[in-house]
Amino acid sequence: MLKHPSLMHLIDIESLSAETINALLAAANAILKGHAVKISQNIAENTPVATLFYENSTRTRFSFHLAASRLKMTCLDFTREGSSASKGESLQDTAATLVAMGAKILILRHPEAHSAEQLKEIVGDKASIINAGDGAHAHPTQALLDMLTIQHHKKKFNDLRVAIIGDVLYSRVARSQICALTKLGVKAIHVIAPTVLLPQDIHRWPVVLYDDIAAGLKEVDVIICLRIQKERMPSDLFPDVVAYHEQYGLTQERLLLAKPDAIVMHPGPMNRGVEIESSVADGKQSVILEQVHNGVALRMAVLSAIAEERCQ
Amino acid sequence: MLKHPSLMHLIDIESLSAETINALLAAANAILKGHAVKISQNIAENTPVATLFYENSTRTRFSFHLAASRLKMTCLDFTREGSSASKGESLQDTAATLVAMGAKILILRHPEAHSAEQLKEIVGDKASIINAGDGAHAHPTQALLDMLTIQHHKKKFNDLRVAIIGDVLYSRVARSQICALTKLGVKAIHVIAPTVLLPQDIHRWPVVLYDDIAAGLKEVDVIICLRIQKERMPSDLFPDVVAYHEQYGLTQERLLLAKPDAIVMHPGPMNRGVEIESSVADGKQSVILEQVHNGVALRMAVLSAIAEERCQ
Amino acid sequence: MLKHPSLMHLIDIESLSAETINALLAAANAILKGHAVKISQNIAENTPVATLFYENSTRTRFSFHLAASRLKMTCLDFTREGSSASKGESLQDTAATLVAMGAKILILRHPEAHSAEQLKEIVGDKASIINAGDGAHAHPTQALLDMLTIQHHKKKFNDLRVAIIGDVLYSRVARSQICALTKLGVKAIHVIAPTVLLPQDIHRWPVVLYDDIAAGLKEVDVIICLRIQKERMPSDLFPDVVAYHEQYGLTQERLLLAKPDAIVMHPGPMNRGVEIESSVADGKQSVILEQVHNGVALRMAVLSAIAEERCQ
Repeated sequence: MLKHPSLMHLIDIESLSAETINALLAAANAILKGHAVKISQNIAENTPVATLFYENSTRTRFSFHLAASRLKMTCLDFTREGSSASKGESLQDTAATLVAMGAKILILRHPEAHSAEQLKEIVGDKASIINAGDGAHAHPTQALLDMLTIQHHKKKFNDLRVAIIGDVLYSRVARSQICALTKLGVKAIHVIAPTVLLPQDIHRWPVVLYDDIAAGLKEVDVIICLRIQKERMPSDLFPDVVAYHEQYGLTQERLLLAKPDAIVMHPGPMNRGVEIESSVADGKQSVILEQVHNGVALRMAVLSAIAEERCQ
Repeated sequence: MLKHPSLMHLIDIESLSAETINALLAAANAILKGHAVKISQNIAENTPVATLFYENSTRTRFSFHLAASRLKMTCLDFTREGSSASKGESLQDTAATLVAMGAKILILRHPEAHSAEQLKEIVGDKASIINAGDGAHAHPTQALLDMLTIQHHKKKFNDLRVAIIGDVLYSRVARSQICALTKLGVKAIHVIAPTVLLPQDIHRWPVVLYDDIAAGLKEVDVIICLRIQKERMPSDLFPDVVAYHEQYGLTQERLLLAKPDAIVMHPGPMNRGVEIESSVADGKQSVILEQVHNGVALRMAVLSAIAEERCQ
Repeated sequence: MLKHPSLMHLIDIESLSAETINALLAAANAILKGHAVKISQNIAENTPVATLFYENSTRTRFSFHLAASRLKMTCLDFTREGSSASKGESLQDTAATLVAMGAKILILRHPEAHSAEQLKEIVGDKASIINAGDGAHAHPTQALLDMLTIQHHKKKFNDLRVAIIGDVLYSRVARSQICALTKLGVKAIHVIAPTVLLPQDIHRWPVVLYDDIAAGLKEVDVIICLRIQKERMPSDLFPDVVAYHEQYGLTQERLLLAKPDAIVMHPGPMNRGVEIESSVADGKQSVILEQVHNGVALRMAVLSAIAEERCQ
């Protein structure tokens, strides 16, 4: 029988050991194979969950709600609209209120980097925090479900070359993915992007940089396209999305440069025809919908690990 | 014991046989009489439902949520606000995402005609689609709950004269009602409306046209008022809603022209004083709230029929 | 074993006897001590709840949803956005629709005073109404949870001096609190506010008025700060919130004027630095988060009392 991974909060990948990551992937795999998670009704009832989303989201919020629902946890949705936050209440006071009402897990999405960590420090051990994306900092459940998806197709991590294409500067997804891939020991991470879309400290990251997509895709096993956030595009370099697509869009033709069995990933929602050609998104090598599918199982694994840990 | 009607999708009334319609009405009747639907816990848990509403709605969305909840199905609400749709994601990609997460029934309301059919073709057999209103095309659960309500009061359909008053041109409700009434074999359908509010192909419909409400109401057993959508009123004909009310509003006086036991229906929400006089809406012959009440049972019948069909 | 308090609607404190108030507090206390409320699955399933919020709220709506969820009642959220209300449907027609669908308890928040009472008269015995705040009229569950919190710290009510500071004119919370404190027999209620923030008939209320906060805080056991609604501040008296804070803000220094064991309360959300200094809000004498915590138990007591009453 699987031991539950030990987890009290999930703020970023940096604070997880490789062992914990592997335990979470194993738990999610068991769920995908139809093994019910052994979370007792008592624990589920004693762990009400609240989602606090200060930014829009379909996938993540819905995915957490479905995961909680399959675990029979109560999951209430706090959104900025129609709430005291619109009366100017601070995140801290809103969170303290939800915790006082009995919420034991707070799932936070927030535009400011490090807000999840700050919330964890304020809330202490009264509730667990799951970071569902904070600014450009981290999006750990996305990175974990991506690892789960890679594992399904590629078995071992240490032989892999992974390419990440696009706006790394503003991408919390990329940061969390690179950290997870490094902890799991991949052979190489290729970052493919124009210099203006790279963070200043990129030279300290465990990645190889490519300005040219053709060079960067050579020999890779996994290709991750990042969502282009149009409002952040440097307009002198890319006057429009067509210009971006010409230089960095993943097309059928470019896909041929990678290994023949390379898989194509995207965290969604996609801009079809911008960072990814529609035929690639829907093509044989695409595992984009598998990522979504795996997300529910991975989040069930995270929620149940935290619920078990809290009730010990 | 009732056999579950065989149903995989519910797109429009046109694609239902009279037999299936009658089986759904019978199942809804059994629910109204307090006979619990025999849907196993296992089937309910394996059929998560998602509502996708791209237009506003109280009745329909709420009614589906209550129906799902009474069947112990998980029902998550996807609304355009606060979602990736506001980031420009297409209906197709949003739906594919929800299906990848495990949603087995998608309940769609959308401003474009035929979007439910298109979605069904994209989703294939991975999930069932229930059309909760698509443009001016169809609103099948509304028509079915109306048939259920008529059946309660009038027993047999084949002796009935039914009048439908108002904006037939833009009304998905009217289209679905006329199709259902025809399949159930009513004697006559009177459509009462000014020519500008009639579709061009109306002469091919199985209805009798009346420009004059007094003539159209004569001898009818059932009167259906349609909601006036003010922004669509031809302003040269009806400079204001008062002018419409004068010519086509259902008043106490006009109600006397129908059979004494005629019932008055409205799909809601009503514009009191426009298409219907307040005293008629609340009067003895009104069955408007019964329609709402029957809607939950009818939707339970639809959801359970689909869930059973999917799990076979 | 506890007898359930007899309750069919909860419109305001005025219509509750002291006996019913005490029975509700006792039921909430039993819940807080971990005694499961004895509400049968059958009753829970037969009492679907709908929240109808025509104003923003975090605490109250969330608190009711959590309470219903812990009682295993279905609780659906009707919000003005994305609903027929935005098509101009009246509160009466919306409520009648929800009741026709099977909702047995309607929890209403509305900007107009006395709307809960009006709704109760329209709905009759088909559903129970809980007033979750109507204009400046009443907010009975807030007052009851405040009484529960006071009781935890002060045991007996009849020795207490309670100070209420701030905008009494527009505060439904203050009105309900003053009524409850009076019914429970406190020794004195000090209302501390500038004359412009007092209702015209204040001289008929069972309170002692203080324009000077120092005088008003003397010897009090309980201090209740009201939320300042900035848009309602008389701008000639208080050109900005700083000016209000100088005259009426609860500071550490002023807190010393009350009894040493005085508790500090606030219905939330707080304007830190306006009606209350941050260090007081988070200080040892503050019971603000206890109020929130007690709110869920109190609302469980109210919901279960009504559900039991309806099913007899």
